Amino acid sequence: MAVDRLLPTQEAEDLLDLTRDLADKELATRVEEHERAETYPEGLFATLGAAGLLGLPYPEEFGGGAQPYEVYLQVLEELAARWAAVAVATSVHGLACFPVATFGTDAQKERWLPELLGGGVVGGYSLSEPQAGSDAAALTCKAVAEEAGYRVTGTKAWITHGGRADFYALFARTGERISCFLAPGQVEGLSFGKPEEKMGLHAIPTTTAHWDGALLETDRLLGAEGQGLQIAFSALDSGRLGIAACATGLAQAALDAAVDYANERTTFGKKIVDHQGLGFLLADMAAAVDSARATYLDAARRRDLGRPYSRQASVAKLVATDAAMKVTTDAVQVFGGYGYTRDFPVERYMREAKIMQIFEGTNQIQRLVISRGLAR
Amino acid sequence: MAVDRLLPTQEAEDLLDLTRDLADKELATRVEEHERAETYPEGLFATLGAAGLLGLPYPEEFGGGAQPYEVYLQVLEELAARWAAVAVATSVHGLACFPVATFGTDAQKERWLPELLGGGVVGGYSLSEPQAGSDAAALTCKAVAEEAGYRVTGTKAWITHGGRADFYALFARTGERISCFLAPGQVEGLSFGKPEEKMGLHAIPTTTAHWDGALLETDRLLGAEGQGLQIAFSALDSGRLGIAACATGLAQAALDAAVDYANERTTFGKKIVDHQGLGFLLADMAAAVDSARATYLDAARRRDLGRPYSRQASVAKLVATDAAMKVTTDAVQVFGGYGYTRDFPVERYMREAKIMQIFEGTNQIQRLVISRGLAR
Amino acid sequence: MAVDRLLPTQEAEDLLDLTRDLADKELATRVEEHERAETYPEGLFATLGAAGLLGLPYPEEFGGGAQPYEVYLQVLEELAARWAAVAVATSVHGLACFPVATFGTDAQKERWLPELLGGGVVGGYSLSEPQAGSDAAALTCKAVAEEAGYRVTGTKAWITHGGRADFYALFARTGERISCFLAPGQVEGLSFGKPEEKMGLHAIPTTTAHWDGALLETDRLLGAEGQGLQIAFSALDSGRLGIAACATGLAQAALDAAVDYANERTTFGKKIVDHQGLGFLLADMAAAVDSARATYLDAARRRDLGRPYSRQASVAKLVATDAAMKVTTDAVQVFGGYGYTRDFPVERYMREAKIMQIFEGTNQIQRLVISRGLAR
Amino acid sequence: MAVDRLLPTQEAEDLLDLTRDLADKELATRVEEHERAETYPEGLFATLGAAGLLGLPYPEEFGGGAQPYEVYLQVLEELAARWAAVAVATSVHGLACFPVATFGTDAQKERWLPELLGGGVVGGYSLSEPQAGSDAAALTCKAVAEEAGYRVTGTKAWITHGGRADFYALFARTGERISCFLAPGQVEGLSFGKPEEKMGLHAIPTTTAHWDGALLETDRLLGAEGQGLQIAFSALDSGRLGIAACATGLAQAALDAAVDYANERTTFGKKIVDHQGLGFLLADMAAAVDSARATYLDAARRRDLGRPYSRQASVAKLVATDAAMKVTTDAVQVFGGYGYTRDFPVERYMREAKIMQIFEGTNQIQRLVISRGLAR
Repeated sequence: MAVDRLLPTQEAEDLLDLTRDLADKELATRVEEHERAETYPEGLFATLGAAGLLGLPYPEEFGGGAQPYEVYLQVLEELAARWAAVAVATSVHGLACFPVATFGTDAQKERWLPELLGGGVVGGYSLSEPQAGSDAAALTCKAVAEEAGYRVTGTKAWITHGGRADFYALFARTGERISCFLAPGQVEGLSFGKPEEKMGLHAIPTTTAHWDGALLETDRLLGAEGQGLQIAFSALDSGRLGIAACATGLAQAALDAAVDYANERTTFGKKIVDHQGLGFLLADMAAAVDSARATYLDAARRRDLGRPYSRQASVAKLVATDAAMKVTTDAVQVFGGYGYTRDFPVERYMREAKIMQIFEGTNQIQRLVISRGLAR
Repeated sequence: MAVDRLLPTQEAEDLLDLTRDLADKELATRVEEHERAETYPEGLFATLGAAGLLGLPYPEEFGGGAQPYEVYLQVLEELAARWAAVAVATSVHGLACFPVATFGTDAQKERWLPELLGGGVVGGYSLSEPQAGSDAAALTCKAVAEEAGYRVTGTKAWITHGGRADFYALFARTGERISCFLAPGQVEGLSFGKPEEKMGLHAIPTTTAHWDGALLETDRLLGAEGQGLQIAFSALDSGRLGIAACATGLAQAALDAAVDYANERTTFGKKIVDHQGLGFLLADMAAAVDSARATYLDAARRRDLGRPYSRQASVAKLVATDAAMKVTTDAVQVFGGYGYTRDFPVERYMREAKIMQIFEGTNQIQRLVISRGLAR
Repeated sequence: MAVDRLLPTQEAEDLLDLTRDLADKELATRVEEHERAETYPEGLFATLGAAGLLGLPYPEEFGGGAQPYEVYLQVLEELAARWAAVAVATSVHGLACFPVATFGTDAQKERWLPELLGGGVVGGYSLSEPQAGSDAAALTCKAVAEEAGYRVTGTKAWITHGGRADFYALFARTGERISCFLAPGQVEGLSFGKPEEKMGLHAIPTTTAHWDGALLETDRLLGAEGQGLQIAFSALDSGRLGIAACATGLAQAALDAAVDYANERTTFGKKIVDHQGLGFLLADMAAAVDSARATYLDAARRRDLGRPYSRQASVAKLVATDAAMKVTTDAVQVFGGYGYTRDFPVERYMREAKIMQIFEGTNQIQRLVISRGLAR
Repeated sequence: MAVDRLLPTQEAEDLLDLTRDLADKELATRVEEHERAETYPEGLFATLGAAGLLGLPYPEEFGGGAQPYEVYLQVLEELAARWAAVAVATSVHGLACFPVATFGTDAQKERWLPELLGGGVVGGYSLSEPQAGSDAAALTCKAVAEEAGYRVTGTKAWITHGGRADFYALFARTGERISCFLAPGQVEGLSFGKPEEKMGLHAIPTTTAHWDGALLETDRLLGAEGQGLQIAFSALDSGRLGIAACATGLAQAALDAAVDYANERTTFGKKIVDHQGLGFLLADMAAAVDSARATYLDAARRRDLGRPYSRQASVAKLVATDAAMKVTTDAVQVFGGYGYTRDFPVERYMREAKIMQIFEGTNQIQRLVISRGLAR
């Protein structure tokens, strides 16, 4: 049963219809195979790109979809309801496009954006390092300026799509401060670790990147030297909304599966949805999903209106990912023993939900951001 | 610090400004005195009526404000942030106007509505009975048709503004089924019990009503005979949104008080807002408030668009009132021992929050409504 | 229905029987009147003293009951189930006896203890100050040594039984460090503020104390000069167990009331205990009460065995008081609108539960104690 | 760091020491390999049997360890802290021995028990069916009496150790009612489905069993014909305590891992255990583990004393498994991105915790049991 969405335009309605169709055909049919076998879905991002789903929130002049965040995030949500890993990678791609789209010069935008937004390429975001997750002061990867460009040395970690992406938004230290680069996916002196063995999101690799003196041309610097953290945090506000939407879609999928099962399974002579104890559990799950969606949409509308939304983005990430963890865990419960097996997708949903509470700023970091906003 | 609201029009911005001013002057200054002394705020509802705040969501042609629910509820929220009892009574007044405004004939609307919406009168809603809260089948109060009208006999309970209101939306059994009446506040054969001794909301009485053969004129029947429950449940969908808004305003007031205190109070050499353990508690409170507001606004926008919103109203009531209970309880915690005294308003907020989880359908009833919507 | 308790001896069984009888006769019959009128229960502590309940965990040679903490705490629990304020004051009395019983010289014990433990007198504990709750470094009340003794100047706060107690365990600064004194309840230069207006525990006053150069004889110093904080924290470990027991008794009373009501009240044609949604709520409440009791008893047994129990005392205080807050709030919910009135005791239980999360170290302080124990 | 346990005897201390040694050597060293490869730990149960750990709570005269449940469960907990699947299988083995030990005739006990308790064999428990988890009325597997014994036909499900166990406590319908049998692990007409593909507990298979007219000798009937459900529920009270202990051990392992990591990992210039926000999270985890243990031990002591403990067993199962789910999920959070990988055991703990809320009566069933105990 499709989610009853509030959308601002007929165009947005059509876009969501298209997304659901595509997601049903291309994602829902392949997700089990790839998540089990831990294989990369070759060609899938080209398909998403061809459908225009990889540049939705960016300007039309550079090949983007010019969609408000309010709409874009609901597209992400529909993708996540079929395949969380692909939706997350799509969100990360949007994040990776952010620095050039927002801080790039006109020349940089013209050179890079059309390919990034509609060329079937896919990007990664490379801020974290092994000893530095949310703690930017601890970053050590260096980009040293020389005549031909910047020479990059160091190790980055936790890169979604690592080794597979066509480009990376890379953050590295230039002297005292951090700078942002649009790095190619392949360049001499760049190699990738073997994929992390994760609890979920198996189809898309997460790796480290080893920069061993690779050279980035000068015009791959985005914004000013030293402006990197400003760019990174600005991108993360958007990225957190993307994760909030992915988490909501995942929670919706878990709820839908649980509701379907609760309407079929009979115990003690009644459908389990009609046992009030279980009905109340489902009601709390539904309330959490509705509330998560409303929360991220409120933040998205502020972004669309040019209003401050950083605190709301952190709230949305916190609320939606905590909801996803709770709802997916409870969805397994609704299925009982069956839920604990791979015969149903809910055990996968639960494994996938956990990372949502962690990446793009752990929920502890979100609380820190929110509480700092309360201090005077 | 005023809440940063998304409002659809400049008119709505102005209305909220007016509301905040009025609430600061007329409510915030009197709340402590009346809540302590348990005295009725004489004249206050006339003031609210004169300011146009008693008919906001109803048509202009009958003296209403023609405001979307999205706006009206934020007005309620601002009232609740200063004085929960008054905001609740205002919401109940809106509920009491609903049957005539929605199910009344043109003649009934013309006769009654102008006074109800802008005449400085205030209404109550009378559905519950001592043995029947949310269980309509157990209602026993009867309205027996005779030539001159309906003769009402029985006892109603839990009437906000009981004995003080100028009119009541009254539900009584006419034969097998329930009918709805617009009853006057004073009529021969109608008397009221003494006010319930409540944990909070002291300034506005809650009483029983004893109908001892009082006569209601025939044209006080709203809708068809037997249509009462349909009217009641329809009204309650709106009423639940009103309570969700009141709960959110109350939670916001508690959060604001806690944040202020946490920025002033120092322990172990630091402001307590800067102790991370407490900062995280405040962050969770802020997230709950933001999320409650977003949730009720989503439901309100559906109502404003003429979309189904019954399930979303129940979700909003559930989420917002649970949030208010949690946030107010934690606000007392932020104040430590001081919070447990009447020197600060947070102990009152906590006492006020509890009823929000109970009236207009306990949160168990909301879960029942939601879970039934999930059964097929 | 009496709680099914595990007790180590027949003597303990008898003691619990006696306690229940006395509590039913002397506490349950008077609690409503005094809590409403906010009047002190004159003579009640003399009755408790005469029954031997004011010195239970202390040695028999000085008039105590020589009961293990495992038993003593269950006595406190039974008192709290009838009258939280009296149980808390009894626990505080035990806390006030601790310094002399544990750190006093033989002479001091012989001089003071018999009266404290069985003489019908009652004690208070005076550590907090207006600007210093759990933050001992911020204490400013001074005791300056002179020939005749210590001259005390300063203001103490949050004293349970302030102005009514016969003696106080007083902590004051002697030079750099804090010392502990056994102060008389009346002495020249000592006056008390008017009682705090609290949300609950109305029958026992909580006040500030103003020390304006009052003189304490030298032999009222307990332990060595500067040993005060060691004594205070040591006492608090025991005191926290007392609060955990009081909170458990309060939660048990709320559960019992809710279960009784749920077995009487009928909605939708069934007793509400048989509506599974409500039944599950009651089950969670019962689980919380059982678990709170088991948790504090585990800590008490460690204390009785002479094993370390400081961390377990903090865990017990945290778990039991959070349980009491949740269970009492849910108990009001079980009663619906009736629960929100003074017609039933559950609204009082809820008001009383809140302070349990705050005093003798807020639950944030308990978390701090526990987390420090995890750091290496 | 070893858990500081309250144990009743030196013998129990020694037993726990032995258990920890054996668990460190035989379990901790092999768990990762088998859980990853999903391979059965050949020979391991023989080792446990040889150490006397497979018959601990049963009488010495039949080869058991004659240990109180209070001790036996703490042994299970130590096993679970190293390898949840093995601890669960050990608990299930104890459950499988229960019918013969408790309801068997002397002859049956003499014939079977010595082998079951100390012979290196391992048992399974076979009550559930595909369409009947906790709903015994829906059981369809039949045992039809004929001269030579009982002929069993039907399908059983969710059998821990299915296909690997040496014997099963089997419940099948004999006419209207259910009977209990001690079935051999291999017999003509008995086959097993392929192992369920579970989210965790990979090393021990869970399968269906297909009974296709297999013949059980008459003396394999335990108790009277039709007494099966009484036996089953009686066994489950004990079994739930076993699961509560396993869940507590698993939670303890997760807490220990998180505490270790929090004492090593540094962010923002401090060990993360010293960031108060994370410290409070760890404190709540520690409180949950302590409380879970205290709760199951309270129930166990009642069992050991011959007191009623059925409700307490359900409470213990509910509290301990919910604690395990929460603590393991939060443990992953403490590790951040690292926690989401197989580089640390916490992601496994989280996957293992989920089943604890489900088997031997879902936590919804536990709430049902508890709430029925509250109805009169």
